[in-house]
Amino acid sequence: MKFEVVCNRCGKKCDKNKWDWKCSCGGAFDIVCDLKGKSFVVNRREESMKRYGEFLPVDPDIRMLPEVRVGWTPTIRKNIEGVNANFKLEYLNPGGSFKDRGAWVSMAKALELGSKGVVVDSSGNSAIGFALMGLISGIEVHVFVPARAPRGKINLLKLLKARIHMVKGDRMEVNRAALDYESDELLYMGHWWNPYFLEGVKTMAYESYEQMGSVDYVFSPVGSGSLLLGLYKGFRELVELKALRSMPCIIAVQASGYSKICRELGASDLDLEEKSKLADGIAIEDPPRRDQIVRAVKDTGGSGIIINDREIKESLIELRRSGFIVEPTSAVVYAAFTKIKSIPRGSKVLLPLTGSGLKVIDDLVEIETG
Amino acid sequence: MKFEVVCNRCGKKCDKNKWDWKCSCGGAFDIVCDLKGKSFVVNRREESMKRYGEFLPVDPDIRMLPEVRVGWTPTIRKNIEGVNANFKLEYLNPGGSFKDRGAWVSMAKALELGSKGVVVDSSGNSAIGFALMGLISGIEVHVFVPARAPRGKINLLKLLKARIHMVKGDRMEVNRAALDYESDELLYMGHWWNPYFLEGVKTMAYESYEQMGSVDYVFSPVGSGSLLLGLYKGFRELVELKALRSMPCIIAVQASGYSKICRELGASDLDLEEKSKLADGIAIEDPPRRDQIVRAVKDTGGSGIIINDREIKESLIELRRSGFIVEPTSAVVYAAFTKIKSIPRGSKVLLPLTGSGLKVIDDLVEIETG
Repeated sequence: MKFEVVCNRCGKKCDKNKWDWKCSCGGAFDIVCDLKGKSFVVNRREESMKRYGEFLPVDPDIRMLPEVRVGWTPTIRKNIEGVNANFKLEYLNPGGSFKDRGAWVSMAKALELGSKGVVVDSSGNSAIGFALMGLISGIEVHVFVPARAPRGKINLLKLLKARIHMVKGDRMEVNRAALDYESDELLYMGHWWNPYFLEGVKTMAYESYEQMGSVDYVFSPVGSGSLLLGLYKGFRELVELKALRSMPCIIAVQASGYSKICRELGASDLDLEEKSKLADGIAIEDPPRRDQIVRAVKDTGGSGIIINDREIKESLIELRRSGFIVEPTSAVVYAAFTKIKSIPRGSKVLLPLTGSGLKVIDDLVEIETG
Repeated sequence: MKFEVVCNRCGKKCDKNKWDWKCSCGGAFDIVCDLKGKSFVVNRREESMKRYGEFLPVDPDIRMLPEVRVGWTPTIRKNIEGVNANFKLEYLNPGGSFKDRGAWVSMAKALELGSKGVVVDSSGNSAIGFALMGLISGIEVHVFVPARAPRGKINLLKLLKARIHMVKGDRMEVNRAALDYESDELLYMGHWWNPYFLEGVKTMAYESYEQMGSVDYVFSPVGSGSLLLGLYKGFRELVELKALRSMPCIIAVQASGYSKICRELGASDLDLEEKSKLADGIAIEDPPRRDQIVRAVKDTGGSGIIINDREIKESLIELRRSGFIVEPTSAVVYAAFTKIKSIPRGSKVLLPLTGSGLKVIDDLVEIETG
């Protein structure tokens, strides 16, 4: 695919054959795909992200892609009070979360650049995605994680042979430590900045379209915003490719205490002082792509909604009763769906379930019995 | 579907509207489907076991089936030294193992019978399948598990609201305790005996056929034999339905120290005295359907192969390098595939990966670093 890497603040183009994680002006890079004259043609023989090779910014030479099946996750439809709710089981990806999508494309880029290793920062799932791709591809993966990340996730990183760097402090400090560590040999590919990561995530929108046509509403948890921005880009491209007539309305979901974006979107955080302890995957004070996220939501006519720990817990239990064993962070989406009153009956809604609960069984028991 | 429940020892028929877990002669019941004049027609709109409603011994009324997506798991093809190896990712079922298939059909039967609750015995995964179906259907599930079952699995059972009964002793003693507990109100549905369980598992053979046509070899771990017998029955029915011309050759895989069936099939257990500690899912001394399993394997021209803990460990690590995060028991299949020398190049092979590694991350870390 023809594409350019462009700073979304100053418009400067980045050399595709070099790796810059940030523009010299301080802005983040985006990938701009040249879709002129193209239509949405997929490789139907592939039941994975590989079916979208035409729309990904990586060498289509199959030898350069990590050999693992990512994506093409099932979608389960439920009629909930007259709304056509579609749960997308992203937690069935090989590393147990949607982050595998972004890690897959990013690692393909790292292979293309001939890099020796990569550095990422993560609360867990993104690191797991990268570690898995590294294990498969033979590329060194340095992961910076908060010391308080769930033990199940840290242990999984060990099994995947990641080089683990534990950082005391909040998620912002983990990010700084990772940035300090990167070098010419070790590329910083953290999903907060990395535009290739978003290209991986956008395939979820493509799949949603293939599996159920157009949708009216999309609920997206927002931490760094990689899920929301990936979905936004995927749907935008489907419109550009004339597969879809219009964009779905995107609802940003944040956890109490980590709600800057939703507050900018007009939501009020009644539990602002009581920071969420359960939504570890989206406990990010101030993500670098904040303005971009707010713009994306507004562009779709969407809004923001804030979920507290009580709502997360209730939603977790209810999801499990429907057969979805997910992690606490993933439950915010369903909590938001049941909380919001403005979804008209008859609407079609996409609810991505982002991360597996099987990785954090001990924590779930503690949350629910403790 | 028309069917009968028949004792596979004395031929006596069991009343379908009552629940007997064992024939008065001591034999186990089988379900005999009436497939006369039928062909293999599936409901293509359903991407789950529901597509095989025509061939399942349960009320097709959808309200009687636990509302959860079981089955239709992906199959990943790899060329391994000239053999077309197909990994079926059974660990992506909602409860994290193929046992969900058997539990789904069994629980549908329990609902049909209007039962208040069920009793099962299990080393973990089967109990998890039943507990999940119970949680979804509102039926009480009593699970009897060995006290030394992996903690992750026990904790998951707690989350699924199972009534847990821990039993000290080996898997045979756990079985006796469960049988002592069953009553007219609480049906014993353990997978060692329960023929409805096998009906659920047989759908894996159906899917294998739909996803890749005929196969030459099928590798199956054998504990109680529910996987092997389910696969055998599924493939037999496909032959009867004229979808397949002939049966694949079934290779039974057991763990050292728990190898009675494979030894009967002519394999020698060099590590007989050193009982496997890793293959907790198949550590069963003497399963009640032993003769039936041996007959099934022989009928396909198959054989047995025994795997020790060193081989399990190596295979686990190698599978993970291919992106498959599975539990130790699941690794025996790949270990057997690499150990056996008699698979001709060009053969098509089915390798079910039975259980998720995400449930037992702590144990995996201990095994691999301890």
